[in-house]
Amino acid sequence: MMDHFYALIMAGGGGTRLWPLSRKSRPKQVLPLTEERTMIQITVERLYDLLTPDRIFIVSGPDLAAALHENVPALPAENFIVEPEPRNSGPAAGLGTFVIGRRDPNAVIAVLSADHHISREGDFLESLRTAEHFAQQGHIVTLGIKPSYAATGFGYIKRGERLGEFGAMEAYRSESFHEKPDAATAEAFIQSGLYSWNAGMFIWRADKAIAEFERQQPEMAKGLHLISDNKVDGQFDKVWASFPVKSIDYQIMENASDVAVIPVDMGWSDVGTWGTLFEVLTKNSDGNATRSNGAEHIQIDTHHTLVVSDRLVVTIGVDDLVIVDTDDVLLVCHRDRAQDVRNIVQQLREQGKDDYC
Amino acid sequence: MMDHFYALIMAGGGGTRLWPLSRKSRPKQVLPLTEERTMIQITVERLYDLLTPDRIFIVSGPDLAAALHENVPALPAENFIVEPEPRNSGPAAGLGTFVIGRRDPNAVIAVLSADHHISREGDFLESLRTAEHFAQQGHIVTLGIKPSYAATGFGYIKRGERLGEFGAMEAYRSESFHEKPDAATAEAFIQSGLYSWNAGMFIWRADKAIAEFERQQPEMAKGLHLISDNKVDGQFDKVWASFPVKSIDYQIMENASDVAVIPVDMGWSDVGTWGTLFEVLTKNSDGNATRSNGAEHIQIDTHHTLVVSDRLVVTIGVDDLVIVDTDDVLLVCHRDRAQDVRNIVQQLREQGKDDYC
Repeated sequence: MMDHFYALIMAGGGGTRLWPLSRKSRPKQVLPLTEERTMIQITVERLYDLLTPDRIFIVSGPDLAAALHENVPALPAENFIVEPEPRNSGPAAGLGTFVIGRRDPNAVIAVLSADHHISREGDFLESLRTAEHFAQQGHIVTLGIKPSYAATGFGYIKRGERLGEFGAMEAYRSESFHEKPDAATAEAFIQSGLYSWNAGMFIWRADKAIAEFERQQPEMAKGLHLISDNKVDGQFDKVWASFPVKSIDYQIMENASDVAVIPVDMGWSDVGTWGTLFEVLTKNSDGNATRSNGAEHIQIDTHHTLVVSDRLVVTIGVDDLVIVDTDDVLLVCHRDRAQDVRNIVQQLREQGKDDYC
Repeated sequence: MMDHFYALIMAGGGGTRLWPLSRKSRPKQVLPLTEERTMIQITVERLYDLLTPDRIFIVSGPDLAAALHENVPALPAENFIVEPEPRNSGPAAGLGTFVIGRRDPNAVIAVLSADHHISREGDFLESLRTAEHFAQQGHIVTLGIKPSYAATGFGYIKRGERLGEFGAMEAYRSESFHEKPDAATAEAFIQSGLYSWNAGMFIWRADKAIAEFERQQPEMAKGLHLISDNKVDGQFDKVWASFPVKSIDYQIMENASDVAVIPVDMGWSDVGTWGTLFEVLTKNSDGNATRSNGAEHIQIDTHHTLVVSDRLVVTIGVDDLVIVDTDDVLLVCHRDRAQDVRNIVQQLREQGKDDYC
């Protein structure tokens, strides 16, 4: 039944919120953040219970493809799909779907992120099995993360009528997608019990997704057909550059037909900031966490602090800090202010200090 | 009148409270802490209005003498007096006094520290002129720092009857020396108005000081005569090792006769911890201070924080921190906990991690 199941891992991102460890040339997905393995290694390897390496595809920019392949050498070289330049998730998901659909017209594809943390991997795999089942029936399926608080940093999905169950999980019709809400709206979402976080994980049949691209983004679909049919005649970059820079939610999901949502509680985190990374790390008895290569953290009266360093770090009388120590930059940030890191990166870029970015 | 005036700078200390910048092999006196010049450079150069370089002597251990001479090359090589090993300030002050006294029996010597900060140097020089005057009259003179708070970390000197004035400053008989007091005693000292901090700065005629050594420390005086007369016959180390490890206060000052104190308010700090260094540094409009070689501190919502680094340091949402970034160690410490740094150094030594010390 899973004979035509594929994963398409979106690895093109170059986020700035885990700076200064994460850089343009060495983004989150190729860093060992939550444990010794890199995020892409974890993302790929947790799929191995469901998929053989030849069924796992990775889409990224040209600069990162080699590093990604070094991280997961078990994947065939032809499974690394290269986008000429980043144009947000819509074109990237389209490219991967059209390419896989060309190779296997019966493909069911799970579109996943390269850099998310999932603590309960069994529940994740179970949700994929359920999603594959409903995708086979023609639904465009999205995984809906059970919200743990009234987050304003994620989009939400509202569920409607129950479609049924498969294995241990249920599927619902997706009634609507919502952009990041304000605090009051987020609170109301949580109270209603009908909303899940949109983690950007979609499971669809290639033919259904391609039909949605053809219906909603006809010009882009034409280009994606040319690319996946190898008929661009050296004009890949030019065709690619004509695609709108938009998310897959905006380009396809919000107006797709037959969208289903599978609510799942799997210990998910987008590891979006140093603060959220801290939350998923193992803490010692003082509530501190370290990520380092054999370096030591010696402390007196230090609590709830994250230390990322390859050197000896000594902390005295400090709480709730994020300390990130790299070759050329040192960051010391309050845990609650981790989202401000991106403003620093922006400031450095504006000042032409790209070496630091 | 100042024809026989000398300075003897005690530069043998290897404190641990400014670790990790200050190390055993590179202590405070050879570091540029308060400005671009090193502490020993500042200490020597502020004497130039009173003394020519040939009148300034420096006593230190053998390891540090070369570095000190590199710092102040204007001083003749023979003015660097080497103690074989540190035995606290008593033997060091004795050695320097006997050596200078041998060269000039009429010498008046100001015994000073190599690593203290003085913001009002004019008042300091004025106090030395006054001290020299009263020392010529046979007094053993000490400078008494006007206390700015009820410190428990310094010794105190109580003044008695007024001896007179010279220039703009007055001298008093020193009634008693007091070790570091508890908080209540310190408060009572401040309230009385009769107490000054003992900063370890003494001005004495060589013959008077030598007589005190002979009276109070006869064995040691015998040894110091042998050394300064060049009659130790290669036994310098052995003679030196026989001297008690004691402070000059304990060995001489507390029981000396004719001790005078000159109260002076000269913006003095012993720069004893990162917290006290922060206090003497120039702050920017956010109350932050940096010490670096061309590195940059970029911050959002950061206040009253000291950054010592040669790299780019970014701080977000933190207050009252001391951040000291060296090649092999990073320290992040609350300003009020700076005195705990020495406990870390002790811990590292006990663990045999001397490379860090």
